[in-house]
Amino acid sequence: MTSTSRPHGIYSPVVTPFTATLQPDPQRYVRHCRWLIDQGVGLAVFGTNSEANSMSVDEKKKLLDALVEAGVPTDRMMPGTGCAAFTDTAELTRHAVSLGCRHVLMLPPFYYKNVSDEGLFRAYAEVIERVGSDALRIYLYHIPPVAQVPITLTLIERLLGAYPQIIAGIKDSSADWNNTSALLERFQPRGFDVFAGSETFLLATLRGGGAGCITATGNVNPAAIVDLYRHWQEADADARQQALDATRAVFAQFPMIPALKAAIGIHTGDDGWGTVRPPLVPLSAEQRTALGNALAGAGFTMPGIEAVA
Amino acid sequence: MTSTSRPHGIYSPVVTPFTATLQPDPQRYVRHCRWLIDQGVGLAVFGTNSEANSMSVDEKKKLLDALVEAGVPTDRMMPGTGCAAFTDTAELTRHAVSLGCRHVLMLPPFYYKNVSDEGLFRAYAEVIERVGSDALRIYLYHIPPVAQVPITLTLIERLLGAYPQIIAGIKDSSADWNNTSALLERFQPRGFDVFAGSETFLLATLRGGGAGCITATGNVNPAAIVDLYRHWQEADADARQQALDATRAVFAQFPMIPALKAAIGIHTGDDGWGTVRPPLVPLSAEQRTALGNALAGAGFTMPGIEAVA
Repeated sequence: MTSTSRPHGIYSPVVTPFTATLQPDPQRYVRHCRWLIDQGVGLAVFGTNSEANSMSVDEKKKLLDALVEAGVPTDRMMPGTGCAAFTDTAELTRHAVSLGCRHVLMLPPFYYKNVSDEGLFRAYAEVIERVGSDALRIYLYHIPPVAQVPITLTLIERLLGAYPQIIAGIKDSSADWNNTSALLERFQPRGFDVFAGSETFLLATLRGGGAGCITATGNVNPAAIVDLYRHWQEADADARQQALDATRAVFAQFPMIPALKAAIGIHTGDDGWGTVRPPLVPLSAEQRTALGNALAGAGFTMPGIEAVA
Repeated sequence: MTSTSRPHGIYSPVVTPFTATLQPDPQRYVRHCRWLIDQGVGLAVFGTNSEANSMSVDEKKKLLDALVEAGVPTDRMMPGTGCAAFTDTAELTRHAVSLGCRHVLMLPPFYYKNVSDEGLFRAYAEVIERVGSDALRIYLYHIPPVAQVPITLTLIERLLGAYPQIIAGIKDSSADWNNTSALLERFQPRGFDVFAGSETFLLATLRGGGAGCITATGNVNPAAIVDLYRHWQEADADARQQALDATRAVFAQFPMIPALKAAIGIHTGDDGWGTVRPPLVPLSAEQRTALGNALAGAGFTMPGIEAVA
């Protein structure tokens, strides 16, 4: 199934469950993805918060296969497919498109630093040419704090000029509102969809004409974030934004990825969710208790989430 | 063939030739590796200057197969096997060891930033346990300007404590002599071999008791660098170091990887050597001419190098 609808609203970089021996766990994964879909959140599987770059291409292909085989709707997915090597990016992107996941979120090649826009243009162009599908829609992934390789306005302009049908938008994880604002002003009116990199800038992005946000905390607080998206033009929008900020602030006291997984573990009663792949480390027992207490104190809940039976 | 000798002297991160369609080119590769061996330089294949992280694990496995099948001696190789995902690192390392390449140069996982020494320790430990070979010898690859993930003295201490037979040394590409000096003082006396990250610190490293250097310009200026290694205790050592520095300074006027490949192209008459994978870009025609002129002006030669017939 290939969707013709354009992604918008709230997506989450889905955290990836691992078994005790650090293998990807499709059973917990499908369960969590279904819950997110039920909450109104799209699946930006294989994002930074998914520990995507701690997995091989084959591991990611198999997880995507598992979701599709389980009937998780491909038109609600936006898999991250950007790897260090463009040959890997092309392979994973080709696989995603072949499964009907036409919308992909694509990091630039991220090992070499201080590379030119010309070089990054060539990297994206190689992937586009090698995938060779008119169905492909690429959302550029700008996350300079982690990738350390930025996607500049000049690069976007050039990519849009060369591939106007395929270059579809961006996730801006710069945490720099000036950059998000410039993207909204310059590119959103041309149909290039701007997603904020977290819910912190969700209301501001929507007021600026943007498409939504792709946010780590969508894994744990999906309904409230979706509610702001649905009601952003109402009188209580600023209050809703403040409530989202307060919940995010609880998680931000801890390393984000282990904290997201620990919270899912606490609310499903499934401690196995706490496992992360190195170079990340799970929360300590003390951190996990502190997180649980802070979330309880904030009245935080995850309605409807269940452990794998 | 598994060598029992300990690597020392001069190694080069072998530049990887690509065809016009950007495929790895085993024919040019084997030829260049044989020339380097003839010059006395060991093969740190799949280093940063090899564009290793612009290649998939499978592409690297096949290039290593091609070298071994061509009879290039495995005891003169130190393949780089560190990838972003530890599962990829384990797969490539296992393949190298299975071919008799027991000495590997291993980047830390490099996508996630500001990770803990605990997390990096776990990443190396997972690879060591999954490879499961007593023959394995790991040279840590410290290159914070590119990987942005440092290998600290504390991490080395912990790895040496846990795996004293397997953790064998380091390539220090910090370009920070204070760090190299600290490594030499603290770890070299314990049999942990310190390689400078370029010939810039070769003489200083040897005077500090280190093992040698692993240097990009070993691809183009191997004999002179090896000569300093062989004669570093002689009276003219400082003059030799200055001569090496002067040659390196010519290359340093250009982007290093494309310049190394262009120089090989100029000296073999094989323009195809100039090809690089994105996100890198080849030298422009003007840059190539300027490089050729600067090298000619410096009296630079590459004796014995030949084009593929």
